[in-house]
Amino acid sequence: MGQKTNLNLVDECDNFPYYSDNPEAFEKRLQGYYHFLLEGCEECLGYVTSSVAVQLPITQHWHRDDSKKRLIFQPRDGSGAPVQQLEKRNKILAEYLQDVREKKIFRVLDGWRAELYPIYGPNKELLLSMERSATPLFGVVTYGVHMTGYVMTDEGMKIWAPRRALTKQTYPGMMDNTVAGGMSAGEKPFECLVRECEEEASLPAQLVRSAAQACGTLTYFHVRDARAGGEVGLCQPEVQYIYDLQMPQDVIPQPGDDEAIDFQLLTVQGIQQAMADGRFKPNCAHLLLEFFVRHGILTADNEPDYIEIVSRLHRKLEFPTA
Amino acid sequence: MGQKTNLNLVDECDNFPYYSDNPEAFEKRLQGYYHFLLEGCEECLGYVTSSVAVQLPITQHWHRDDSKKRLIFQPRDGSGAPVQQLEKRNKILAEYLQDVREKKIFRVLDGWRAELYPIYGPNKELLLSMERSATPLFGVVTYGVHMTGYVMTDEGMKIWAPRRALTKQTYPGMMDNTVAGGMSAGEKPFECLVRECEEEASLPAQLVRSAAQACGTLTYFHVRDARAGGEVGLCQPEVQYIYDLQMPQDVIPQPGDDEAIDFQLLTVQGIQQAMADGRFKPNCAHLLLEFFVRHGILTADNEPDYIEIVSRLHRKLEFPTA
Repeated sequence: MGQKTNLNLVDECDNFPYYSDNPEAFEKRLQGYYHFLLEGCEECLGYVTSSVAVQLPITQHWHRDDSKKRLIFQPRDGSGAPVQQLEKRNKILAEYLQDVREKKIFRVLDGWRAELYPIYGPNKELLLSMERSATPLFGVVTYGVHMTGYVMTDEGMKIWAPRRALTKQTYPGMMDNTVAGGMSAGEKPFECLVRECEEEASLPAQLVRSAAQACGTLTYFHVRDARAGGEVGLCQPEVQYIYDLQMPQDVIPQPGDDEAIDFQLLTVQGIQQAMADGRFKPNCAHLLLEFFVRHGILTADNEPDYIEIVSRLHRKLEFPTA
Repeated sequence: MGQKTNLNLVDECDNFPYYSDNPEAFEKRLQGYYHFLLEGCEECLGYVTSSVAVQLPITQHWHRDDSKKRLIFQPRDGSGAPVQQLEKRNKILAEYLQDVREKKIFRVLDGWRAELYPIYGPNKELLLSMERSATPLFGVVTYGVHMTGYVMTDEGMKIWAPRRALTKQTYPGMMDNTVAGGMSAGEKPFECLVRECEEEASLPAQLVRSAAQACGTLTYFHVRDARAGGEVGLCQPEVQYIYDLQMPQDVIPQPGDDEAIDFQLLTVQGIQQAMADGRFKPNCAHLLLEFFVRHGILTADNEPDYIEIVSRLHRKLEFPTA
């Protein structure tokens, strides 16, 4: 197995094409997707692969336009009238997805999470909540928190990295960020972080609340491969709220749930080697690159692709966001 | 004068449209520009406004294609054969621009700097060097360093901000980043920073070398308005290498050349007020937003446009870069 460059790592995570790199190829690629829309909202909420679009059952709540390649969710009440309230829309969507799950049409729904993810509109309003495992089918933007826990030692900076449980549905056995998790509908980034720190790494809420620092967002547009489980080629644009936590030497993270096998405290060089070996989950390597840029570990002097990498850690997504 | 939001400030600096915001409007806008190309290189190096393109004298070294809207630099030797060497290309370009300057066709060339800026090709190779004041005519990417010098005090973080001299050609009297300057051809980012820190702020090279930390790049695509001086509407895509310098309380920056009137040490709130008042040079406000994001001062909790702002501080430029 060859060693991956940092740009290779970026290419693995942020792997949806850019218009500016090749306008014609980009537009041709886009023709392979249906635009997912909510009736009454003009903006595209996600890209749905054609193979998914044609397999989704079309009920009274859906309209599929094969000429314009649009898949429109148009929830209807018992009398056939459009549904305006958020809660009723969500209920119709939940029942629909439950039905699709039971029909066993898509493998990604085997990883049903019973957790609702938010979908926002052009004015940052909550438009819909959707079962987490279904979000890649519709290619909608999802949100999470990723935190790097690090320790300053006599030997320099060290970073805490867990190994994902072998039983995880996605990326089993791969290395991960110190703490990372998805944000449910209604959750705020920092509260999500505090919860995940406690659940995943047994880090005391008091430490996280007093010492974790918000450092920006990581944004990328991922197209899923086999390691993610389920159908390949699904679109997964993501926003990760980034936090740093400088940890005292005597705080040792411990798996608090079944997400991680263990935590290792590695030098920066050790982390970089694991990244180059392809042992990190792709979006976690992406986050670590951002951490290394921000901490002056990756610089214009030692990274030939510095400018491109920094931009691609912060992609401007073409969908409405929170 | 109304107060500017942080997104307003971003919109002032990164004010070239995005394809994804409105593909049709974007493509229509692009039709207003000529693509600047070097013969033998396929990639567009910059956007030239039509009004500039038709005023540039067409000599044997230039080809203007009005149907394809391409402006091609094709340097020729005495016998009319293509010139291959970088140095000869640069000499032909320098003589040409000197001639254009003397003809007084463009006001931006009244700000002649006698300083060469690099233009890179798709493999990061140096393709051309161009007189600094001419770069907005051709819309090529330019490079600089911007550093935030800050002090931790009993009253919290304070930031050193200079006021630009009233005699500056561009943005006279506006507030600026602690140290900022353009990178000449052949210069490396960190060496440029050390030089500018000494020249502009009288900061000792030893302090800068030991304590300045690289933190990434700021990238944006600016379209010039009247405050920049010269023709309006010129394209200015830029890459700024970002540095932080935590300064001891007893180091006081002093103007070392005629760039700044003075330096003020302001609280974060004082800086934010000056930004909202529109007193900062646009790209310096852009840099300060990046600093505030990175230091956890702007967060998802206090900034409604957080996700968009972070992406737009790191725009992926559509031209080759260093």
